[in-house]
Amino acid sequence: MLSPSYRLFYEQPVHAVRAQGCWIEDADGRRYLDAYNNVPVAGHCHPRIGAAMAAQGGVINTHTRYLTEHPVLLAERLLATLPETIGKVVLTNSGSEANDLAIRISRMVTGRRGVIVTDCAYHGTSDLLQGMSPVTGLPLGPDVYAIAMPLEPAGPEQFAALVEDAIARMEADGVLPAALLVDTIFGSDGAIADPTGFLAGGVDAIRAAGGLFIADEVQPGFGRTGTGMWGFARHGVVPDMVTTGKPMGNGQPVAALLLRDELASEFARHQRYFNTFGGSSVSCAAALATLDVIEDEGLIDNAARIGRHLMAGLAPVIAASPLLTGLRGAGLFIGVQTASGEIAAAIVNALRRDGVLIGAAGRGNAALKIRPPLVIAMAEADRLVAAFAKAVGDVENSNL
Amino acid sequence: MLSPSYRLFYEQPVHAVRAQGCWIEDADGRRYLDAYNNVPVAGHCHPRIGAAMAAQGGVINTHTRYLTEHPVLLAERLLATLPETIGKVVLTNSGSEANDLAIRISRMVTGRRGVIVTDCAYHGTSDLLQGMSPVTGLPLGPDVYAIAMPLEPAGPEQFAALVEDAIARMEADGVLPAALLVDTIFGSDGAIADPTGFLAGGVDAIRAAGGLFIADEVQPGFGRTGTGMWGFARHGVVPDMVTTGKPMGNGQPVAALLLRDELASEFARHQRYFNTFGGSSVSCAAALATLDVIEDEGLIDNAARIGRHLMAGLAPVIAASPLLTGLRGAGLFIGVQTASGEIAAAIVNALRRDGVLIGAAGRGNAALKIRPPLVIAMAEADRLVAAFAKAVGDVENSNL
Repeated sequence: MLSPSYRLFYEQPVHAVRAQGCWIEDADGRRYLDAYNNVPVAGHCHPRIGAAMAAQGGVINTHTRYLTEHPVLLAERLLATLPETIGKVVLTNSGSEANDLAIRISRMVTGRRGVIVTDCAYHGTSDLLQGMSPVTGLPLGPDVYAIAMPLEPAGPEQFAALVEDAIARMEADGVLPAALLVDTIFGSDGAIADPTGFLAGGVDAIRAAGGLFIADEVQPGFGRTGTGMWGFARHGVVPDMVTTGKPMGNGQPVAALLLRDELASEFARHQRYFNTFGGSSVSCAAALATLDVIEDEGLIDNAARIGRHLMAGLAPVIAASPLLTGLRGAGLFIGVQTASGEIAAAIVNALRRDGVLIGAAGRGNAALKIRPPLVIAMAEADRLVAAFAKAVGDVENSNL
Repeated sequence: MLSPSYRLFYEQPVHAVRAQGCWIEDADGRRYLDAYNNVPVAGHCHPRIGAAMAAQGGVINTHTRYLTEHPVLLAERLLATLPETIGKVVLTNSGSEANDLAIRISRMVTGRRGVIVTDCAYHGTSDLLQGMSPVTGLPLGPDVYAIAMPLEPAGPEQFAALVEDAIARMEADGVLPAALLVDTIFGSDGAIADPTGFLAGGVDAIRAAGGLFIADEVQPGFGRTGTGMWGFARHGVVPDMVTTGKPMGNGQPVAALLLRDELASEFARHQRYFNTFGGSSVSCAAALATLDVIEDEGLIDNAARIGRHLMAGLAPVIAASPLLTGLRGAGLFIGVQTASGEIAAAIVNALRRDGVLIGAAGRGNAALKIRPPLVIAMAEADRLVAAFAKAVGDVENSNL
């Protein structure tokens, strides 16, 4: 059987048997509005992506030791969405593999070890990344330093000061900074989107100290924030390396590290990198079809439009409830601050009973995380807001 | 474009555009007999596996935070092939992710750090595993010790002595042994299959010192050695943990860690583990269909039968050539020792020119690696042997 290290969502787990668009159906035929899953960015079981995978799977599905067109086409498509200083791609199977490689490269190229992350960060499952994912409750790894992420940053100066403080702490330990690694929507910190531009202070600070800036776009990337493909652009910064994963193949395990040419060259002078499945033909076909759907169905605009509508709908609920203390977000990544993890869990479970799926994150799991597939329609957003208001009312009236 | 850290096979890379069964076709319509790829274990583009993935992709493709049937079915199918002491499963996307987690668990459960690997081992791409993959030329990681793997082990006593020596070296450094991690066909060491049972000495030695035995079955597993599903069984040993990956989904990124119940319980007392794509429905469907094909098409028996035929056909070529010094293997994992890496490369490239794909591995890349999909037919094996004899003759007649 599955290992006991697995954990299901919700007091009453959802036994999911079918899914389409923004809807998941359980074994009893009950339908749930999915306002949580950021992997099926184009909607669950998108037929065009499935067809692209099936077609490719009948022709060839091989690796990057042979010349094949798919990884090259995918690399070009991804790079066309990025600042021109970022010119090289490595394909992997998961955001974890991409982040793990980004850290290795940052340490090799700088000849330094220090890495700065936020104090509720999550960057992946590997041994290396568990030590850079304090939200898991595990201790920080060697040479990893965390900054206390404010839920409402004052601006670039404050974020710069936080990064400078981490650099000072590591240098006091005799460690030099290799990289600042942040999720540019600060998803597991509770969705800290504003003020736009605050991140730039930290990016300047790490570079002034000789380190690199790695943008973990596994959560904000692929259009979720509604202002282009990547979350970092909202802050007016250009990363040295960018990682992506979850939404990239709409469910297919495919991910990427995108990096500056000089970093790729310097790494390649010392090490090679081969990933058996990374860049395999079917995974690339899934990613290419996902990019097509995002473009052809206008999903970035939809994320912006529905995200604004959701924020406008949620704002009065939050203003009226003593249980809720803040509303943050960009596009279809929305965080609602509650007074405690217990309150957040109660709202999450009340919504689940009412057929709407969301989650919780941040310090003490006190922030609600609303992150539907980017295809969500206006009527579905209205359903979400109505259910949210009802769930908050129910929890207010309970004895919690 | 793709990072310069990528490396293509062969002096003249193969531009692969189509593949079926044991054949890869290039952009000019030339067909190559694939005697190298261990990922498409059921043959390239197996229609039944493609159909299973496409069907599942149209219904639901989600993760293990919801109750879904596929990961549970897959766990049960895998566990039914393993000794009963191994009762728990964690699903990942790659053998690297599975090995990385196995090492983490071994260190957490034992409270120790020391890991023993062979001196041409390859265990994966993560930061942690690069330090356990000396075949890459990278330095060993902290607390990692390598044993000098003999190409023709004398027996269990000799292998025990090698492991005991590594334990003594680490203990002299104040490090206690957590695990012995070996690929049970020693693929990147050059395919060291015999004498069966030699591995047992090392397994006894690591356990006597309080460490665990992790069988890396990414290469030998899923029937390749022709004597059951797993390579460790040839040595009469029962691992504490087993990892698999490459062949598991016939090309789909899916992998697994299978472990003793007590280890899974102890790990789960301290840490949770979630892998976004690991255990997703389509990946599980691919793995279940691959298991079906292995069973229904009798691929393990085919590996044994064709493997014996290949070994019998290659033996006289090897006996007759001054360039070749050994023939090793089990089932369809065959290693041919050559006198040098240059000779091995010359034979690999001569075969590629003649339309047959193999590779090289081992110390100095001097061992030829022959590892066709398990569906290879007798006539294809005969084609391989004839081409091999011709390539060896060509290299003998060259000025190398």
